[in-house]
Order: sequence, then structure tokens, then C-alpha cells
Amino acid sequence: MKLLYPTTLNLNPSLLAGFPTLTLHPYDATAPTLPASLHDATILITWANSAANLSFAASHLPQLRWIQSLAAGPNDVLAAGFDTARVTICTGSGLHDHTVAEHALGLLLTAARRFHEMRDWQVRGKWPAHLGGPQPDREPGTFRTLRDARVLVWGFGNIAKCLTPMLVGLGATVRGVARRAGVRAGVEVFGEDKLAELLPQTDALVMILPGDASTRHVLNKERLALLPKHAWLVNVGRGSSVDEDALFEALEKEEIGGAALDVFEKEPLPEGDKLYKAKNLVLSPHAAGGRPQGAEELIVDNLRKFLAGQEMRNVV
Amino acid sequence: MKLLYPTTLNLNPSLLAGFPTLTLHPYDATAPTLPASLHDATILITWANSAANLSFAASHLPQLRWIQSLAAGPNDVLAAGFDTARVTICTGSGLHDHTVAEHALGLLLTAARRFHEMRDWQVRGKWPAHLGGPQPDREPGTFRTLRDARVLVWGFGNIAKCLTPMLVGLGATVRGVARRAGVRAGVEVFGEDKLAELLPQTDALVMILPGDASTRHVLNKERLALLPKHAWLVNVGRGSSVDEDALFEALEKEEIGGAALDVFEKEPLPEGDKLYKAKNLVLSPHAAGGRPQGAEELIVDNLRKFLAGQEMRNVV
Repeated sequence: MKLLYPTTLNLNPSLLAGFPTLTLHPYDATAPTLPASLHDATILITWANSAANLSFAASHLPQLRWIQSLAAGPNDVLAAGFDTARVTICTGSGLHDHTVAEHALGLLLTAARRFHEMRDWQVRGKWPAHLGGPQPDREPGTFRTLRDARVLVWGFGNIAKCLTPMLVGLGATVRGVARRAGVRAGVEVFGEDKLAELLPQTDALVMILPGDASTRHVLNKERLALLPKHAWLVNVGRGSSVDEDALFEALEKEEIGGAALDVFEKEPLPEGDKLYKAKNLVLSPHAAGGRPQGAEELIVDNLRKFLAGQEMRNVV
Repeated sequence: MKLLYPTTLNLNPSLLAGFPTLTLHPYDATAPTLPASLHDATILITWANSAANLSFAASHLPQLRWIQSLAAGPNDVLAAGFDTARVTICTGSGLHDHTVAEHALGLLLTAARRFHEMRDWQVRGKWPAHLGGPQPDREPGTFRTLRDARVLVWGFGNIAKCLTPMLVGLGATVRGVARRAGVRAGVEVFGEDKLAELLPQTDALVMILPGDASTRHVLNKERLALLPKHAWLVNVGRGSSVDEDALFEALEKEEIGGAALDVFEKEPLPEGDKLYKAKNLVLSPHAAGGRPQGAEELIVDNLRKFLAGQEMRNVV
């Protein structure tokens, strides 16, 4: 039984050993085709595959039974046209929690500590005296520290659960918003029907929503208007969840404090897009994730379950 | 008995109430003199005072017995020429721990997540594709995340104790260096004689040393050369502890990964200084501290002790 693993990241094949019926074969996930010797593969691991590569795999691997993607979401695999009646698709959900949470924390600190403004002064060879020295402590109506800051995390899955203790460790007060209300990871998570109440009590809004029809433009003009004038938006979910025209207007009119965006409706953000120069906008080029951690452990765990005919993790 | 408190920050005088023999008087700490009505003060709270103001106070307050500075160090007060035989000087040590630790963490994340590079691309209206998308995970010889990063904290006082759990919460391995070895806050702290062993095993060196003769240029050419090529320096202590010429050379020759500096030998860093444009240097304008937190609690605690004739906190 053949398992194909991609050379787009440094997987350690020795960590996949121990299954006698299995042979392991590296493949180039960016190539438009797969060599004939691999067409009888049963298992395909995917990471950063080109669309052509996935589409070739969908039509040339008749014995394929399982795809283990290492990406957080299945969008690229689903779009390739695999026969889902015979191929089980599993995502890499969980492999990106820490790295996305760390990036979100970094963007929050950039916003609060104004590192982006400092950078602009440095590049001009000037000392930004107004950003240092004695400063007011926790002035009302500012977002200058995570200590005592009210952080609202919209989209409360595993990334949020990983981010929460980091924020709490820095003294923030964390609340969540999700479709399903309840207490998760020690955080009170509210339903989306409570947003009108929660947004005005927010110093920093962190969005970690998936990109599907149900989340499109959920942060719109009306909801942006509910945020305090000093509040920052950090988006490490999907760009489609924010109405970028409404956000641009809110930034330019200084109706919110700023926005640090790792994701955009169109990526790469086209040259000349107005967002590059929007007031108080910090741009990150979809860099929060992109580094699956613990991939071998997930593959091995699902491999054993697959061979044993048990239910696997992260089935789409 | 008169207590003078500065209007350079928003102290809440009602939090200092409850001592019947005491009267509270605001004063302008940036003015070159103090009004005659305050010259019989017993207690002086200082924060961001001008040198002229302190020097006036040193020669015009004959009944002064206690100065409570809200700064972490006593340098400005000591330089003003108070008669230390009759005036007890207390620092604001502890009031800046969280804010400096948070800033240090932010600078570490800026370095690891390359936010400064992203900023430069954004300002030019370009998408930094190479900084986002699929990336190698924990490539050896890089500093790209705090997870599993080896952070060495040089100068292991209260700020380090506050920073450590933040770093550990992000998955870093923390070790300390200080004059006195031992285990503090769960961290193994080594003596400075172990630096030659520790520096080569460091992904990020955080310096939190005070600025006195004993710490001058302790990070010199020889010690910089011991750091791995990818290692970053973060300095939130005092600029005098780093030999800036040696650092500039190490940066330009890419002998270390980079440096995020909040403090400099000369502040403000003079216009035209070569450090502004040094390779992989991130500049922060002495912004880590500057916001005493919990000042009233310290003042009140020391006030009661002063009135009771007990030993006060943070006596110089």
C-alpha cells in the first residue's frame, strides 16, 4: 500500500515507519503531474499543492482512499474534484493552532505598543519621542497594553483556545463569540446575537472565522460602528469575513483605532489596493499559519485508525 | 505634614487619603521652581521631573525627609544633590515590571514574526509574498517563533520574573544570567562566568541590566561573536550595557540575526546615527516602561511605614 508524502515541507518519514504493509513515497506537490509509478497510491498527504497537481491526482489515482491534508481547511482539496464517495478527506486542523495564536498575539502587541509607527519613524531616520518616555498609564479610551484590555475573540475553536491563556497571562480579559454559546477553555463564549452588546465593550476584536458563505462580510459597516473609537481589529481567520470597503472607511474616518490584517478578500492584496495606505492599518501577508506543527503525529495516528478501519480525526 | 505629588501622571489622590496628619499638594514636576507655599513639604513624590525642578527641590525644601520616585531607577534623583543624610530615597522598582515585560515580548515577536520587514513592504505598497504562505517549520538556524526557542534573559530581577511566564506560555525555554546564580521563578539562573557556554545556545538574548559602571559594554564584540548567526538581541535595560559600535558591526556583517533596541547609549538617538539604518535593527524609543502601574499602592504602603517609623520598600 503506497502513501505519498509531499516534499513541500520537511516531513520526517522515519516518524511514519512501523506499518509493514505500507511503503512511503515522496512527491513534488507543485508539479503538474505525478509519475506513473505513483498512480496506484492509496494514501495522499497534501501540503501547499498546486491546483494542477491536485486536479491531476483527482483523475489519475484510481486506488486512492484517503487524503490527509496538512492545511487547516479543506478548500483546495475539495476544489480539485476528488470522488468523495471513495476518498476520505481529513484536514490538518490543530496543526496551526499555536503558530496562528502566536501571530495574533504579535499583531495585538504591535497595535498596542505601536511598533509599526516606530518603524516608520526609524526608516525616516527620526526618533519618535512622542511614542516613548513617560506615558499615561491605561488612559481610558486607548488600547496601549493587553493588561486589563478587553479582548473579544470571534470564532472560538482550537486557535482561540490556544490564544486565550497567552492573553490571560498578559492580563487581558477575554470573551468569545461563536455560533454556540457556553464556557470554553475558561472563557465565556456568547452567541452572535450578543454582538451588539459585546462590541461596544471591546478594546481589541480578534477574528478567527473560517471562510465560507455563512461568514461572508459578518464584520460590516453596522458592526464596525459599534466598536469604540480606540478599538483595534486583528483578523487571522479569513479575509472574506470582513467587508473591506466598510473597514477602509472606518479606518480613514478614525471610527476605530486600527486594524492588523493577516488575511484579505483577495490575496495577494493587489498592488495599488487602497488598504496598503489606509490609516492605522498593519498588513501581514497571510503569515500567521503556514507551518504545520506535529504533522507526523497526526498522520501516524490517522494511519493506524485508517488501517484498523476506525474513525479518523478531522474528517471533512 | 505636606506631601507633594506630581501632575506629570494621573495619580488618584483619593487613594492616598486616610492619614489625618497629612495634606496632599499637586505640583508641576516640569517647572523650574516650586511655589513658596510648598517649601515646607516633608514628602516628595517624583515622576518625569525636569533636572531643574529636582535641583530646585534639593536646595529649597529644608523639611524634606522622604522622596518616593516612581521611576524604576534613582538616577535622576541622585543626580539632583539631595542631602541623603536626612532624605530617604525610594525608587518605583516594581511599578514597571509588567509594562517592560510586555514590550520585551512584543519586540521578540516582532523579530520572530518579521513584522518590521512586513511594514517596510506595506509602506512601499507591495505584498511581501516571501514572508507569508507555506513556510518551513522550525528550521534549524532560524528564530521564527518563540515555541521551543532558547531565550536567555540577562539581568534577572522582577522584570525577568514577570517576562518568564509569558515566554514559557508561548513554549520558549528560558534561562537566566545574573551576578547571583540560583533558581528563580522556576528558571535556572547562571552566573556571568557561564556566558561563554550559554551564548552559543541562545536564539534570543534579552538584556534587562541596570545602567551603571559595572554593566558598561558588557555585551561587547567578543560576546556578540559567541551568539549564533540567527540569534536576536532585545535590550530593554539600559543602552550603556551594549557596545553599539560592536553591535553595528555584527549586524552589518550579519554575524547575528538582528537586534531590537528600546534603549541606546545616547537618547534620543541622534539624527544621522548609523544605528537607524543598521541591517535587521528594530528601534523603539525608550518606550518599554514609562507608565508606572500601581503607584498609589506603593506610595500608601510606604507612607504608612514612614509614619510608623518602619523600614520602607525600595530604599536606595
